[in-house]
Amino acid sequence: MTAARSRSILVLGGARSGKSRFAEGLARDTGCEKIYFATGRAWDDEMRTRIEAHKADRADDGWTTHEEPVHLVGALRSLDQPGRVILVDCLTLWVTNLMMEEGRDVGADGAALAASLKELEATVIFVSNEVGLGIVPENKMARAFRDHAGRLHQAIAAEADEVYFIAAGLPLKMKG
Amino acid sequence: MTAARSRSILVLGGARSGKSRFAEGLARDTGCEKIYFATGRAWDDEMRTRIEAHKADRADDGWTTHEEPVHLVGALRSLDQPGRVILVDCLTLWVTNLMMEEGRDVGADGAALAASLKELEATVIFVSNEVGLGIVPENKMARAFRDHAGRLHQAIAAEADEVYFIAAGLPLKMKG
Amino acid sequence: MTAARSRSILVLGGARSGKSRFAEGLARDTGCEKIYFATGRAWDDEMRTRIEAHKADRADDGWTTHEEPVHLVGALRSLDQPGRVILVDCLTLWVTNLMMEEGRDVGADGAALAASLKELEATVIFVSNEVGLGIVPENKMARAFRDHAGRLHQAIAAEADEVYFIAAGLPLKMKG
Repeated sequence: MTAARSRSILVLGGARSGKSRFAEGLARDTGCEKIYFATGRAWDDEMRTRIEAHKADRADDGWTTHEEPVHLVGALRSLDQPGRVILVDCLTLWVTNLMMEEGRDVGADGAALAASLKELEATVIFVSNEVGLGIVPENKMARAFRDHAGRLHQAIAAEADEVYFIAAGLPLKMKG
Repeated sequence: MTAARSRSILVLGGARSGKSRFAEGLARDTGCEKIYFATGRAWDDEMRTRIEAHKADRADDGWTTHEEPVHLVGALRSLDQPGRVILVDCLTLWVTNLMMEEGRDVGADGAALAASLKELEATVIFVSNEVGLGIVPENKMARAFRDHAGRLHQAIAAEADEVYFIAAGLPLKMKG
Repeated sequence: MTAARSRSILVLGGARSGKSRFAEGLARDTGCEKIYFATGRAWDDEMRTRIEAHKADRADDGWTTHEEPVHLVGALRSLDQPGRVILVDCLTLWVTNLMMEEGRDVGADGAALAASLKELEATVIFVSNEVGLGIVPENKMARAFRDHAGRLHQAIAAEADEVYFIAAGLPLKMKG
């Protein structure tokens, strides 16, 4: 295995767009040791079922799984090593978790994450849902969520080496 | 008319994105005999009005219309001929209809459709709505619908020769 | 300052996609006198806060602000001059305002706007929200809104010299 140049990559897409599968392919192609970084919390049975299905898909495929719903920046630092690729799946669940924690400033957390990318020695791949292309939600919390997600995507994309938009499993390269 | 090479094409886009008009242009450019394959069912007056408006737009423009809301794979086979182009409008209405039928496995139907593409001698063009780029719907049925639609798009896109994403009437070519 | 060739440009994107910032950069790059054309009306405190935040962002940055919620075509004509760039932010708010006015035909207003573009001597940049890529809204007014917005985008894109789709602050050029 040759040491791959460390990169940061954002993979954006809609629900069931194949963004996680595309990101897994990018991770595999690095030839690095693969860390799957899950941000999801099981709030109900539906989500628990989805999380377990994803885990089963990765089983026997060489991934080490790490779970951390809130403290993403610190956890990335603790996992950071040359020769590793860390796939963070996904940023939108992280935003949801931050919004549930009392007293957090989601924008500041996002800025800290964006600022940390240049220091990482591992390649890091962020998967996230684009959620801002529908009608304005009637629910105020949903509006705040898509504002937070959109701003985070801009902040990460500005620092990332590569950005992809995924639809129907196919990538459009937007940067890099 | 020269015999065009048979192709399968997926045209994805949002509501009122001009995806049907773009697909009709692709069909016209083949020079083949044009079959318009409508999957829609009129559930209410609003939808009936839309369907009739679409039919009127195609009137006197050389299209033969075929309607089948559920048994898409079999109907495509029965219409299949070299020198024909079949425009299926649209996959998302087909998914809706499948979900309304008792005891169907939407994923299996989608996989059967994807698998059938290589055998067709006609050029087939699928129009479908991208519905996964907004906020997670509160309605469980709506969430299931967008999961089904997203998985179907991935399955069709993997087999299709060309895939387009349409916005504001303009195409982004994603494959082919 | 050299006289820039007059162009018409459509910048489409989701909520918090960075579309206004991208459009402001396009305007700055023309080297022309900058007019910020706001179509928004403050319906509630949340929107008032957003509008004021946007104004503050543009403060001390060389923009003259003009506000007109309904009579866009006439106002553009009255502001039209060579050597000017007019940034209209945004078309979706204009559609909302037209829908609130009694007795207006939104489609006719949109067609008149599209038809006026060729006559303008200023460069005009339209910012608009793509809202048609989520689940069909249950609310009938919301469905009518996204139909109007989608048709307007197609009409403007057909006449515009350049069209961009923005995600995560990054542009995909769709035309020009």
